[in-house]
Amino acid sequence: METLRWEDGTLYLLDQTVLPFTETYLTCTTWQDVHKAISVLAVRGAPAIGVAAAYGVVLGARTLCENPGEKPFLTALEEICVQLDGARPTAVNLHWALEQMMVWAKALGDESPTAITGLLEEKAKAIHADDVAINTAMAGWGADEIGKGDSPLTLLTHCNAGALATAGVGTALGVISELHRRGRVKMVYADETRPLLQGARLTAFELMAGGVPVTLITDNMAAWTMKEKGVDAIIVGADRIAANGDTANKIGTYGLSLMAKALDIPLYIAAPLSTFDRSISGGSQIPIEERNHDEVRSFRGTATALSDTPVFNPAFDVTPHENIRAIITEKGIISHPDTEAVQTFFDKHSL
Amino acid sequence: METLRWEDGTLYLLDQTVLPFTETYLTCTTWQDVHKAISVLAVRGAPAIGVAAAYGVVLGARTLCENPGEKPFLTALEEICVQLDGARPTAVNLHWALEQMMVWAKALGDESPTAITGLLEEKAKAIHADDVAINTAMAGWGADEIGKGDSPLTLLTHCNAGALATAGVGTALGVISELHRRGRVKMVYADETRPLLQGARLTAFELMAGGVPVTLITDNMAAWTMKEKGVDAIIVGADRIAANGDTANKIGTYGLSLMAKALDIPLYIAAPLSTFDRSISGGSQIPIEERNHDEVRSFRGTATALSDTPVFNPAFDVTPHENIRAIITEKGIISHPDTEAVQTFFDKHSL
Repeated sequence: METLRWEDGTLYLLDQTVLPFTETYLTCTTWQDVHKAISVLAVRGAPAIGVAAAYGVVLGARTLCENPGEKPFLTALEEICVQLDGARPTAVNLHWALEQMMVWAKALGDESPTAITGLLEEKAKAIHADDVAINTAMAGWGADEIGKGDSPLTLLTHCNAGALATAGVGTALGVISELHRRGRVKMVYADETRPLLQGARLTAFELMAGGVPVTLITDNMAAWTMKEKGVDAIIVGADRIAANGDTANKIGTYGLSLMAKALDIPLYIAAPLSTFDRSISGGSQIPIEERNHDEVRSFRGTATALSDTPVFNPAFDVTPHENIRAIITEKGIISHPDTEAVQTFFDKHSL
Repeated sequence: METLRWEDGTLYLLDQTVLPFTETYLTCTTWQDVHKAISVLAVRGAPAIGVAAAYGVVLGARTLCENPGEKPFLTALEEICVQLDGARPTAVNLHWALEQMMVWAKALGDESPTAITGLLEEKAKAIHADDVAINTAMAGWGADEIGKGDSPLTLLTHCNAGALATAGVGTALGVISELHRRGRVKMVYADETRPLLQGARLTAFELMAGGVPVTLITDNMAAWTMKEKGVDAIIVGADRIAANGDTANKIGTYGLSLMAKALDIPLYIAAPLSTFDRSISGGSQIPIEERNHDEVRSFRGTATALSDTPVFNPAFDVTPHENIRAIITEKGIISHPDTEAVQTFFDKHSL
């Protein structure tokens, strides 16, 4: 089972809206198909969205080759990138991947649209392959960091930051899988993650398939589970990280960070460096997507409340850096992240 | 719409498992009917369970009059009480109401079973009427306490501690309704309260019906809502309160208390004095009901996870007294509850 696959100029996306009950692939042959898949969360998880969007640019470029319009190729391509960028506002990897693609296209400005499109396809494949390698590196760094002691670990995770959220082994679940491979995981508690239940549908499913011991809980059981089951660490992914380490991630992460702090349990963020948005100094500048209210009033077509119930449905929240023990990246660990620690890390790795 | 109604020797219970989509009453003519209704949460909320159980004892006594067995009437009646007491383990009001009924029955020991049954019916009606009066008194005390300032209040509540959880106006929602009547409520955020969604199905429905401004959120949105919407206070009910003020309530309350403490938002418990179990010194002695795992793996017949997913499903958690600003009772307020404050309050009211 692959989260996304590029084959003969077509992007196949595992439809995550119907997992784990149905395993079906969406066939994307236009950039609009990719835009829609990102919007409805058929493909989700910051890194996977980035890779899908890169292929979306290739599909857009191909259409422009086949049906050139009035506008210059690069201008029209940039407009497609703006559209794709608007599919979801919070995850910065989407923006990052699109920017990578446009920088590449512009550098090739003298070539023909067809030649540029061919090279954009190579670039998208490189972003895809990089994500796989980045995941593996992160898993190693994270397992080294969290697995320092030698007692078996009880872990808790939120949403899905697994293979289904990336092109590789996952971010947070990549670390957890590596700890499991090293024989260090006693139990992983997975928050179901309402409203779209990525924890129940994707994380529990993914960990069970990988033979990792997992127990599903509802989101409001997290604090009691931490206390009663002796959770040693919380590991989650991220959608955007500001220059000071403030981290936007799936709604509920902020609450977990407050509980974890009160109970002295370390919270780890596992995210590729492409998740950093150092153009913003702090988390208050991260746009938070608010989604359709019916997501809260129902699940899979079954009503959970009356249809006219007023709703607040933020898809993400921001965890302040002081609640984060460390950020796990593909280049290593940023402990006790703040503006200085993040700057020092980027300087050290000449990024 | 009444939560429960006693009419011509029959107990009618509003079936809360299908609200707000269907409004239907269960007809209970035997104590077993009442036992089942309590077990499946057709009637729920600590005070309402107590009242229903009291009527259950009447139904049991009536059956014993009609079909006397080998055992003495009071012995057989006590056995029925033990059965009813086992219907749900955490809420102490159930135990309290059954004890009230048995003390009453034993005091009438010389009377005939038929006479005792008639007097037990009067006792059950008195417990029922008391609950209505207690709710009203609590609403007044709570509104006085929480509504001390004069700016409109943004409140948050969890599960359903409303008219549907009691025979009267409710505990936490009774206080909120009274604050609304005084023109002091800006907005009430209601946690949906997985797995059984009492917040989405019952609280949002009840507040909307009462014209109180309400916004539904998923449980994992609570912390972000507190921060972003400026929540002034959290008000919830309780299922059992230990002698030191430690409070068992619907799963998720403990987590809310940690978040509230971190954000310096006061958490109030609204509960009748029958919710206190002063036979236990602290919350660690409160039995926590763990319910069927399918509750977490599904909702209203719709799967949320694969059917073989391992689950942890505690129905309650315990909030330590130091996280509680005050307990609102029908006799007044216990501020900053601890063993001494609770003892002083009970002494003052000669309880």
